[in-house]
Amino acid sequence: MSTYPELPQLLKRRLFYQGRKFSFEVNRLRLPNKAEGEMECIRHPGGAVAVPLTEDGKLILVRQYRFATGRRLLEFPAGTLETGEDALETARREIQEETGYKAHRWDRLGQFYVAPGYSDEIIYSYLARGLELLENPPSQDEDEDLEIVFMGVSELEEAILNGEAVDAKSIASLVLLKPFLDKEE
Amino acid sequence: MSTYPELPQLLKRRLFYQGRKFSFEVNRLRLPNKAEGEMECIRHPGGAVAVPLTEDGKLILVRQYRFATGRRLLEFPAGTLETGEDALETARREIQEETGYKAHRWDRLGQFYVAPGYSDEIIYSYLARGLELLENPPSQDEDEDLEIVFMGVSELEEAILNGEAVDAKSIASLVLLKPFLDKEE
Repeated sequence: MSTYPELPQLLKRRLFYQGRKFSFEVNRLRLPNKAEGEMECIRHPGGAVAVPLTEDGKLILVRQYRFATGRRLLEFPAGTLETGEDALETARREIQEETGYKAHRWDRLGQFYVAPGYSDEIIYSYLARGLELLENPPSQDEDEDLEIVFMGVSELEEAILNGEAVDAKSIASLVLLKPFLDKEE
Repeated sequence: MSTYPELPQLLKRRLFYQGRKFSFEVNRLRLPNKAEGEMECIRHPGGAVAVPLTEDGKLILVRQYRFATGRRLLEFPAGTLETGEDALETARREIQEETGYKAHRWDRLGQFYVAPGYSDEIIYSYLARGLELLENPPSQDEDEDLEIVFMGVSELEEAILNGEAVDAKSIASLVLLKPFLDKEE
């Protein structure tokens, strides 16, 4: 017998909107206490973030305007998994498109859910080293305007603690990066 | 003259779904390159997370089933801001409802966007100390079944690096917590 209580039971799944990158569902559930309720949910293919680290210990970030938030945020290069795409491929593509750098050495940092209360999105995080500035970088997505920012790890930590607008995936990736930095010291 | 390029322009805002906790919009935008596009967006009142730290250096987390993800996650106690509620009030409420502890000492850790590609949700993070186990804790939300977990900071970091399912807000909060731990050493 499980030590866990009963789980909510899905009564009806209703696709409300199919977007370019993800869909929006409203599901009817029966809760363990037998009450019924509606639960809204983003179905997302997942994302990948690259943490580019240069030979001299600088991180490469991008500062970009995010329509949903109405402001510019500082983030590691990242994007949504395209159909049939592996998360590492997404990271390889996005670092080139957003920063113009190609990475020759990749390590898996880990992964996390971004908003488990209403989204199944997992972001896979990768360390990108052996960086080479491309002579002819791929063109950016048409809706992206990006400023490239170089920062040391403690400089980024300080910026975050001083209230610079940085998103959760970029902050969380710093925790996953830690063992690699310890190794290098 | 701004050094930043032109921003996307909102042509039409369409409310698609009004949920209990947030709404879902589909917006028509004109991009700086004059192309038009649809942009899906969660409008969210924001969230608050409490990082409960005991006298002997243990963090208090909750392990709970998340319907959107289909699995149990380890997270700091957190919740959505209710109407008219300040983020600190939300954190005070959630720590009691989810862990049965009340905190007598609160410090602001910082805040971050959780999914800036499609949501305006900001999570405000607070350090909760001076913990007192309530004799009569408030009842949990009916759809929550929670296991309470005590962990040291490095024990949690290790669990994250070993692939335990933890969400981005909980991992990111560890970065914000760092200056408070350094002070205590």
